[in-house]
Amino acid sequence: MAKLQQLAELVGGQIQGDPDLDIQRLSSIEQAQEGDITFVANPKFLPRLKECRASAVIVAPAMKANAQNLLIVANPYLAFAKILTFLQVPERPVRGVMAGALVAESAVLAEDVTIYPGCIVGEDVEIGAGTTLLPGVIIYDGVRIGRDCLLHAAVVVREGCRLGDRVILQPAAVIGSDGFGFAPDGSSYFKIPQVGIVELEDDVEIGSCSCIDRAALGVTRISRGTKIDNLVQIAHNVEIGEDTILCAQVGLAGSTKLGRHCTFGGHVVAAGHVKVGDNVTIGGRGGITGDVEGNQVLSGLPLQPHKDWLKMSSTLPKLPQMRKEIQQLKKQIEVLEAKLKEA
Amino acid sequence: MAKLQQLAELVGGQIQGDPDLDIQRLSSIEQAQEGDITFVANPKFLPRLKECRASAVIVAPAMKANAQNLLIVANPYLAFAKILTFLQVPERPVRGVMAGALVAESAVLAEDVTIYPGCIVGEDVEIGAGTTLLPGVIIYDGVRIGRDCLLHAAVVVREGCRLGDRVILQPAAVIGSDGFGFAPDGSSYFKIPQVGIVELEDDVEIGSCSCIDRAALGVTRISRGTKIDNLVQIAHNVEIGEDTILCAQVGLAGSTKLGRHCTFGGHVVAAGHVKVGDNVTIGGRGGITGDVEGNQVLSGLPLQPHKDWLKMSSTLPKLPQMRKEIQQLKKQIEVLEAKLKEA
Amino acid sequence: MAKLQQLAELVGGQIQGDPDLDIQRLSSIEQAQEGDITFVANPKFLPRLKECRASAVIVAPAMKANAQNLLIVANPYLAFAKILTFLQVPERPVRGVMAGALVAESAVLAEDVTIYPGCIVGEDVEIGAGTTLLPGVIIYDGVRIGRDCLLHAAVVVREGCRLGDRVILQPAAVIGSDGFGFAPDGSSYFKIPQVGIVELEDDVEIGSCSCIDRAALGVTRISRGTKIDNLVQIAHNVEIGEDTILCAQVGLAGSTKLGRHCTFGGHVVAAGHVKVGDNVTIGGRGGITGDVEGNQVLSGLPLQPHKDWLKMSSTLPKLPQMRKEIQQLKKQIEVLEAKLKEA
Repeated sequence: MAKLQQLAELVGGQIQGDPDLDIQRLSSIEQAQEGDITFVANPKFLPRLKECRASAVIVAPAMKANAQNLLIVANPYLAFAKILTFLQVPERPVRGVMAGALVAESAVLAEDVTIYPGCIVGEDVEIGAGTTLLPGVIIYDGVRIGRDCLLHAAVVVREGCRLGDRVILQPAAVIGSDGFGFAPDGSSYFKIPQVGIVELEDDVEIGSCSCIDRAALGVTRISRGTKIDNLVQIAHNVEIGEDTILCAQVGLAGSTKLGRHCTFGGHVVAAGHVKVGDNVTIGGRGGITGDVEGNQVLSGLPLQPHKDWLKMSSTLPKLPQMRKEIQQLKKQIEVLEAKLKEA
Repeated sequence: MAKLQQLAELVGGQIQGDPDLDIQRLSSIEQAQEGDITFVANPKFLPRLKECRASAVIVAPAMKANAQNLLIVANPYLAFAKILTFLQVPERPVRGVMAGALVAESAVLAEDVTIYPGCIVGEDVEIGAGTTLLPGVIIYDGVRIGRDCLLHAAVVVREGCRLGDRVILQPAAVIGSDGFGFAPDGSSYFKIPQVGIVELEDDVEIGSCSCIDRAALGVTRISRGTKIDNLVQIAHNVEIGEDTILCAQVGLAGSTKLGRHCTFGGHVVAAGHVKVGDNVTIGGRGGITGDVEGNQVLSGLPLQPHKDWLKMSSTLPKLPQMRKEIQQLKKQIEVLEAKLKEA
Repeated sequence: MAKLQQLAELVGGQIQGDPDLDIQRLSSIEQAQEGDITFVANPKFLPRLKECRASAVIVAPAMKANAQNLLIVANPYLAFAKILTFLQVPERPVRGVMAGALVAESAVLAEDVTIYPGCIVGEDVEIGAGTTLLPGVIIYDGVRIGRDCLLHAAVVVREGCRLGDRVILQPAAVIGSDGFGFAPDGSSYFKIPQVGIVELEDDVEIGSCSCIDRAALGVTRISRGTKIDNLVQIAHNVEIGEDTILCAQVGLAGSTKLGRHCTFGGHVVAAGHVKVGDNVTIGGRGGITGDVEGNQVLSGLPLQPHKDWLKMSSTLPKLPQMRKEIQQLKKQIEVLEAKLKEA
């Protein structure tokens, strides 16, 4: 619980109404009860406030919101995230190495580390202050993990990989599996050892069952602040810039380099050894087959500017009709040509 | 082992032949031996019975099957499933909390629960009668699991999620991972806490390495009887109706609502915040970009009626030829126009 | 460390330079230091040797490499893989059944097996000599595992499945999950028990979070030498020939048969019950909807010869323009027809 005034200070906002109001929790417009605060990030949802039972509403300065208590802030969506974190995300308890966890003697744990039962931590691992390993996390030898990280159940981090501070790994994420490399040896294949590592920089988040392969030689790098959704494949020696967003089931082939602040929709794929510039947005199911310049919004396979792709895409169903028309035109022209010859 | 008569009673069928026949097991037409029962679900496979060594055959009434012992039933495929279950699926042993499992003292287990070694069950968890947790299952705090569920090895169910009765989770399924939500904060991203839950209703099955994300606020709901294959991504706040089938590697973005009795082929994707009606079938690799009315069979991106898509799809390879023809037609028309001017 | 002479003998190569040279490790051209060996698999990278600090270079006979010490060999890429394995892949220690592992009494372990903490091995399992189970591997009852296999953390192998020799499973791979089979029972579905198994033959490698479903009846078979990348879905009763390569996120539907020495790019999908011949290469995102003859390089959905697909694909963005041109041609022809009538 918090006073409305406290929340306003948290997000740097102005209050219109009662600063002493007690706020229990943050809820959606539809589910809010008395004592709740809700938010309007998009003015088109303002009419829904009529039926809303929330005691306070987070809005932007320009919004005309009909409610008794307003918390006015430049970025309501960000304020929503911060207030929700403050009100409803419990502090993780610090519990040390719990019974049922196995930590190698050579591992070095900083203060306030929590390691749940079923975790196995290998030789020469280093874990920074305040980091939590939930049940069943497996850390191979020689891994370095920074401060205040949260590794969910059944996560695997293989040998020698490095995690920065505040890294979050959702359940069953796999960091440092072997890159997929084989040298043809006659008609069979000889495994190329993958002796590189993965480095996840500060504030990276990796989704459930996503796989970040270790480099063949060198480093597969996910830079600061990049967020990766579930079931994503990052092949060996990929490098991803800062603050990039990859949605679920994206697949990046080996040695591809992405810039900073890119956003890829679900199921986007990239061929290997291509370079993508900064600030590139690619719509879901897009396919990257060659280098891409920065500052573009693209879709499709082949990639096109998103607006052009929409046009192309809406024309596709007309393809059989177009084919018929071309046959028809051919016949008409033949008739015309014949007539002209006669003439 | 069972008498043929017993099996007929199990599936409500008629016997033509010896009701006292001993049946050992159910086999495919090709692999059946003496003592086996086999089945013909599609009349086109009837000729294969000639070479078949099975002692009895499950067929539909209209089928003219040349075999000594027939079990005649309206739905042979369903009868096959029921007889196979009866003959060859062993009862799961009830073994209690086994050595090597860690169950919090506050957890409430009903009778006949089995929890294998390597499982970790958190605080205030409730598990219904007859439910089995195979090795290495991890249940976070506050989870409620119904009766007769089967959770395979390495499954993770995160805090507060709810499972109905007879839910089956294949190995390494992840229930309740964080939804993928971030609020832009300058050029970086601020994590939006995902404080909602996942609810899997009765008779839901989730495949290996499939990820069902918890809601940001509220509930991600998979309704009764829905079956989800491997490596499927269900984003936060998705709602799926009853008896829907999602094949492998489908991806549904946030807040999308599917109706009941839909069937999606492999690799189908759906954008966020769209609504799909009941009884919608979407062919493999289809892409949903907007609302879809019920009772349709669609394919492609953009979606088209499946038959139209087949036509479009078979025209695609002719595209370069069509382009050439258009250039050719242009030239012919120029010639015609010139001639007409002359004339 | 090794003498250059030793490495030449390992890969059957010739030395030009000092055979007594001490080689510390193998590195990429860019990162090599004094004491390192590097390699040039593609002559286009030869100019980079100018700036390279490596003490020796692996090259093909035809390459004109400007370096003091050369190891000349027919297949430099294969030599690179073999030398990297020799120099930098440490032998796995043999440690027996370690404390914290649970192995059923009825399990039969050959000599030199290593089973790490957190592993659970079921009844009647057989494990061959020299095989290693890393932490948290779960083996259900009745599984047979061959010699010199490496099962990474959190791998699950379900009941009755069989692994040949030298099989490698990356972390969280799931072998033998239930095939996705349901018989319609009114508008609901009745689960078809999946009583078959998975067989992985010798030298198979399966990637992280890949799922190989057990057969309904019979065997899902991955033949000798086949390599499967991360997040791949192999449905029940699929059969894959020898030395085939499947890249990440490929999905093969039920009962599909692939030949030997095929190569599928990322996100390729195949419908069920189709047959693909030997030596078929399919580009990323390709879609197999019917049988495919051997010895082809194909792309797209529908599949086309790769070169034709490239042409088709580059024509796609011109589709709206083509449609306009057809409308334009129609009008021109109408005008011509009218003029001719007048004439």
